[in-house]
Amino acid sequence: MQRGQTVFFENRPRIAASAAVAGPKECAGVLGRYVDLALTDDMFGESTFERAERKMLLWAVEKSIQKAGLARGGVDAVLSGDLLNQIVSAGFAARETGLPFLGIYSACSTMSEALLLGGVLVDGGYARHIAAATGSHFASAERQYRYPLELGTTRPPQSQWTVTGAGSAVLARGGEGPKLTCGTVGKVVDFGVSDVNNMGAAMAPAAADTVLAHLRDTARPPDYYDVILTGDLGALGSRLLEELLFERGVDVAANHVDCGEVVYNAAEDEFQGGSGAGCSAAVLNSYILAKMRRGQLRRVLFAATGALLSTVTSGQGETIPCISHAVAIEA
Amino acid sequence: MQRGQTVFFENRPRIAASAAVAGPKECAGVLGRYVDLALTDDMFGESTFERAERKMLLWAVEKSIQKAGLARGGVDAVLSGDLLNQIVSAGFAARETGLPFLGIYSACSTMSEALLLGGVLVDGGYARHIAAATGSHFASAERQYRYPLELGTTRPPQSQWTVTGAGSAVLARGGEGPKLTCGTVGKVVDFGVSDVNNMGAAMAPAAADTVLAHLRDTARPPDYYDVILTGDLGALGSRLLEELLFERGVDVAANHVDCGEVVYNAAEDEFQGGSGAGCSAAVLNSYILAKMRRGQLRRVLFAATGALLSTVTSGQGETIPCISHAVAIEA
Repeated sequence: MQRGQTVFFENRPRIAASAAVAGPKECAGVLGRYVDLALTDDMFGESTFERAERKMLLWAVEKSIQKAGLARGGVDAVLSGDLLNQIVSAGFAARETGLPFLGIYSACSTMSEALLLGGVLVDGGYARHIAAATGSHFASAERQYRYPLELGTTRPPQSQWTVTGAGSAVLARGGEGPKLTCGTVGKVVDFGVSDVNNMGAAMAPAAADTVLAHLRDTARPPDYYDVILTGDLGALGSRLLEELLFERGVDVAANHVDCGEVVYNAAEDEFQGGSGAGCSAAVLNSYILAKMRRGQLRRVLFAATGALLSTVTSGQGETIPCISHAVAIEA
Repeated sequence: MQRGQTVFFENRPRIAASAAVAGPKECAGVLGRYVDLALTDDMFGESTFERAERKMLLWAVEKSIQKAGLARGGVDAVLSGDLLNQIVSAGFAARETGLPFLGIYSACSTMSEALLLGGVLVDGGYARHIAAATGSHFASAERQYRYPLELGTTRPPQSQWTVTGAGSAVLARGGEGPKLTCGTVGKVVDFGVSDVNNMGAAMAPAAADTVLAHLRDTARPPDYYDVILTGDLGALGSRLLEELLFERGVDVAANHVDCGEVVYNAAEDEFQGGSGAGCSAAVLNSYILAKMRRGQLRRVLFAATGALLSTVTSGQGETIPCISHAVAIEA
């Protein structure tokens, strides 16, 4: 069923299990108590950052399948993508699983797009089990999008820190676990921000657009949700989102939480907080879903955001188009 | 409904309309008589190749919506991706449409993944209309994946030529037009090819794997289809596919057609034929679907293939993982 930009899941697919892995810097914060695997070495025993990234993603997918009580290879398809060019982390991880693979790309909102499309496949009876997953790695993202770490470039105060981590959720028709009840497909929103070090400002309008569309399509007030969870707006972007929504008569000051804002403990170079596809994937698939399973949270609107730029578009003077997909997760 | 890797569309979504645009070199061949817009200038009036690529993609999406008799913005979502890093052609084109956007990536098999997921959304009642689209541009692909054109690098004889073109199909529940009856989700297959100039050889095993899975899941003989249409295996890759299938007892010599093999007329530097996401998108959405609408073809298995590599993975010594998604299109 569909209304506006929102699809409704009549069979309410379950998140049968989820798994997350994160790097040492991330595990110094809240993630350390919740992830399935806390890395002590952000290379994960590999020789390149890219191999470490894909190993995390593969680990999360396989762990989530195992936690769901399924045999290895027990899902019908993996829906995944990541920040690296040509989503090679997802593609190479899928090669190792030997499972049918549907590649998606929505930058840092890949986790919510994967849950949304995975929800459609399971709800509609096109799949029994789907693994929805993504991840990112600080060092591979820096090298690809900004500067090689070896350059020691100074980071501006509005910047964020790409999370080294991955998360995967196994969706199932029936059984136990939090339910997906509906999902809202985002539009591409561009407010004209061109500063690639200020992603929170670029992405906040996309999050606002999708949250408003979701509340309109579902006729739900914002306080229907215990938490409206954005992915990686960071501190500045979160303030912008709350202001943009407030201007439109929607007050989320009491229940808005941003994964990027909560992921890091200390304030050294992270400035505005965490970012990257792995940020919301690791936080949702450990901390948030654990709280849902314990009954501490009952209704979460997960609205991750992504910036759909590339280094080429920035080099050619383009602004940053952004998007946010949202899924409602309910106990 | 689902069996093995294959999803079945009980409501048989229609391809209500399709549109294609292609460059001058492409339109010297068979596409010239079938595309909606034959460019005389492969820059499409833009200042960069990347802008020309996204303009083609946007043009195809809007034209297909118009041909389907829908208002501008009359589809529920655009499913699209492309070969450029972070699928910026699709993302930026989606920004211009103002439509909900789901980004996907499956390299040169993006068109078949878009039709498959679009089919699920329409068949399951999650959307009324979906635009499934992709494209590519020779010059932007060469620059990103190989060498800048200005270098004048010699091309080896096993290489292919990225098609400058784009195609879009509007899927609808009910109405007129060829029907999507089922789709097979591919697995990532890697036979150990690492030569980035020999994509046909790398991708042929993925096409074979998916075609075999499709025939097994549907219990159809290969001659059920008038045409088994691969995307861009080229001449060498097509011969490999036919041999791989023959070894498994499946003879497709009589009905296998490769978009890359038929797209170019002349033999200058194209060697093995056309490639790129735009290759199968332009050929399917003009030439093939026109023949279906005229009753000259009744059943087509569209199994585009994609190579899931990046320049970084090749530089790190990895082989080339490939994938093929297939959709059955029937009159």
